[in-house]
Amino acid sequence: MARQRVAALVVAAVLVLATPAAAEDVWLVDGGMVVTMDQAGTVIPDGAVAVRGNRIEAVGPAAELAVRFPAARRLDASGRIVLPGLVNAHTHVPMTLFRGVADDLDLKGFLYRRIFPLEARFVDEAFVRWGTRLACLEMLRGGVTTFVDMYYFEDAVAEEAAGCGMRAVAGETLIDFPAPDNKSWADALAYTERFVTRWRGHRLITPAVAPHATYTVSTDHLREAHALAAKHDVPMLMHLAEARSEVDLIHEKYGKGPVEYAAGLGILDDRVVAAHMIWPTPAEIALLAGRKVGVAHCPQSNMKGAAGVAPVPALLAAGVAVGLGTDGAASNNDLSLWEEMDTAAKLAKVTSGDPTVLAARTALAMATRLGAEAIGLQKAIGSLEAGKRADIILVRTDSLHQIPSYDPYSLLVYATKASDVDTVVIDGEVVMAAGRVLTVNEAAVRERVAAYRERILAADLAPGK
Amino acid sequence: MARQRVAALVVAAVLVLATPAAAEDVWLVDGGMVVTMDQAGTVIPDGAVAVRGNRIEAVGPAAELAVRFPAARRLDASGRIVLPGLVNAHTHVPMTLFRGVADDLDLKGFLYRRIFPLEARFVDEAFVRWGTRLACLEMLRGGVTTFVDMYYFEDAVAEEAAGCGMRAVAGETLIDFPAPDNKSWADALAYTERFVTRWRGHRLITPAVAPHATYTVSTDHLREAHALAAKHDVPMLMHLAEARSEVDLIHEKYGKGPVEYAAGLGILDDRVVAAHMIWPTPAEIALLAGRKVGVAHCPQSNMKGAAGVAPVPALLAAGVAVGLGTDGAASNNDLSLWEEMDTAAKLAKVTSGDPTVLAARTALAMATRLGAEAIGLQKAIGSLEAGKRADIILVRTDSLHQIPSYDPYSLLVYATKASDVDTVVIDGEVVMAAGRVLTVNEAAVRERVAAYRERILAADLAPGK
Repeated sequence: MARQRVAALVVAAVLVLATPAAAEDVWLVDGGMVVTMDQAGTVIPDGAVAVRGNRIEAVGPAAELAVRFPAARRLDASGRIVLPGLVNAHTHVPMTLFRGVADDLDLKGFLYRRIFPLEARFVDEAFVRWGTRLACLEMLRGGVTTFVDMYYFEDAVAEEAAGCGMRAVAGETLIDFPAPDNKSWADALAYTERFVTRWRGHRLITPAVAPHATYTVSTDHLREAHALAAKHDVPMLMHLAEARSEVDLIHEKYGKGPVEYAAGLGILDDRVVAAHMIWPTPAEIALLAGRKVGVAHCPQSNMKGAAGVAPVPALLAAGVAVGLGTDGAASNNDLSLWEEMDTAAKLAKVTSGDPTVLAARTALAMATRLGAEAIGLQKAIGSLEAGKRADIILVRTDSLHQIPSYDPYSLLVYATKASDVDTVVIDGEVVMAAGRVLTVNEAAVRERVAAYRERILAADLAPGK
Repeated sequence: MARQRVAALVVAAVLVLATPAAAEDVWLVDGGMVVTMDQAGTVIPDGAVAVRGNRIEAVGPAAELAVRFPAARRLDASGRIVLPGLVNAHTHVPMTLFRGVADDLDLKGFLYRRIFPLEARFVDEAFVRWGTRLACLEMLRGGVTTFVDMYYFEDAVAEEAAGCGMRAVAGETLIDFPAPDNKSWADALAYTERFVTRWRGHRLITPAVAPHATYTVSTDHLREAHALAAKHDVPMLMHLAEARSEVDLIHEKYGKGPVEYAAGLGILDDRVVAAHMIWPTPAEIALLAGRKVGVAHCPQSNMKGAAGVAPVPALLAAGVAVGLGTDGAASNNDLSLWEEMDTAAKLAKVTSGDPTVLAARTALAMATRLGAEAIGLQKAIGSLEAGKRADIILVRTDSLHQIPSYDPYSLLVYATKASDVDTVVIDGEVVMAAGRVLTVNEAAVRERVAAYRERILAADLAPGK
């Protein structure tokens, strides 16, 4: 039965793909429960989503849309939940090639004995390209349709994401020491401006400027990075209030916390996506809300690195848009947003002592609507609503770990795994059907990943060496 | 390629099963990396495990065992990790039918508005039977070979576990109010004694006596429960030092903590498996170590219920055997030991502020060797060593979320999912091959689960009602 369904799905997907999608063509995802994640929490038990070109034309009961679009081709979602694609609000995708290479170490051991030497030795454009392609495969497999990246050779990240049919906010990292791609601040800034100019307005890619952090980028350089982002009206990504040591350092130098410091520089506004945000004071939380800064909460990475617990309920209560990020695979070690949702809810409950805090629906919103808002794409994605881009995933509901289920949010947040996603549509294109990614040559990726692994293992920087 | 491998595996499994396993017959699991989880941490990159009847005959390099057992049939483990089966040290398997029926509620809402009324309405022997069968399917699928259960109608739990070919420590719950099966203490105690007598010495089932907790079972009854367990030399399972309110209550009544109180009653010894153990004092930790009490740590359940964080590093440092439990699916909501390992490590790190605490190898030990020790089965299971029972799982290492990998413990704890398990051997029998459980009629289970779901949804006790 499972095999028949798989075959039927592939056929359906191919039908959708094979017919040239003229802008006036409408097709329907129907037969499943549509969990829209709109502000009102609309759930349509037997629902449908109509897609025209790269946009959602309509969302409603299947019977209604069948009448409205009688000639539309159909992608059968029966037995599944139809959901907006997930947003991974903070990651470093090329580092997937470093998955688990530096576990169970203190921060110094992690960075100085492993990650920095490994990056110096191995990170070049080809590394970034293959690491990104592997990450895209893993994320698509798990229903992530948009990711926010901070790394180097960001042109390669953007090219690979676009090639995989994925949406990305791609930020070239700016840091006050020689990076794998650019060896000086001036070079990095010039590269970033060319990068931003090249990609601005792309259908899938939003270029961004990504100063690494307050403790690795000088005051003047932070201002320059923000000015560049403002000049081109693109997002600015940074790590902020992540480490206790960062808070101490900024306090020592400037007599205030990292958020207050950044606000004082005039670089905190609604184009900023601040990753981690573990240590804001109540006053800083108010600042973040007032300036409409987006936050990327990374619960599993923060736990594994013992960085601390972000005050997510307080951030949400203040009105801050908080999304979820996996962080890089050297830190976490996978790119499953499903685990981040589950962990975000559980971590908030145990640290607050209140099991009603951060309920399933809120956790799912963080991976969808709130995540889109945190990264400035709330008009385009994050919910299934007419006019938004068609980023849609179909999620199985019949896995052994999912049945029985009594509530869709509970099912999705506390019992669903990345492996339960079976279809992914991004910008109106079917990029995964029946668990098979259609845009990437998986065998080629596997071959290159194996080759990188051999080289890295031989480099005497892997675990146990 | 994947399909060919699946077919080959099924053939291999069927070969193993089809030939009657005379006690002198030896067969080999070979070609994979054998992670023995023995005390020394032996890992054999190209290893083999020889099985004779229901026991492990030998563990060693594949080349060596091929010479020693030239005529042995082979189960090909190439590309996979060969691991001892996982031990779920605390759960309530029939509650799988209540998966996610009571999420995001406070303890009162959870117990009194949902779980107790639902149990009163629905729990009978058939419920227990089908819930257990579903749980066994899910656990086998994820590589759990042994589980420790506390529930009612425990004969049905034991029968179903044995029927699925699973190993279980099955504890009939004793509680000071009318339970779904037995309406008085005397009846429950008599039932438990019959139950223990019936199952003692069974190849797969270890019967146990399971007084619910210090706050739900009187002092006299706790002593009687322990005396019964001692009389028949079987384990005693209980919740202990789980809730802050339990600690307060016992302090108020007896002027000491729950562990000290239980020790004072003379009921704390090496037959006790104490679930949760969130609130022991340092003196109580010393008591647990001295009495050789086993502990079942349930990190995900403890987080979701906001019960608190168990002091696992301190327990381990004191020499307490700490295993891992999923708790019931009404609390957690799945039965994946892989997520418990991952969460146990991350939770210990973030709460101690030290990322080196509870490293991957320790987390894996908690799900295997230490778990077996915690539940008193350390002589039989928990590691791949000659003489132990043949409880063996094969784990894929080539999923997209797993590659590349640089260290087997990192791979298993931080990147592997239940869906990566592809073969399960229990007591020398292949019970799952190529992801297909061979001992359970899955279609029948699905049909019954769907019927229970309809009834429960109609009962006005489900979420949103």
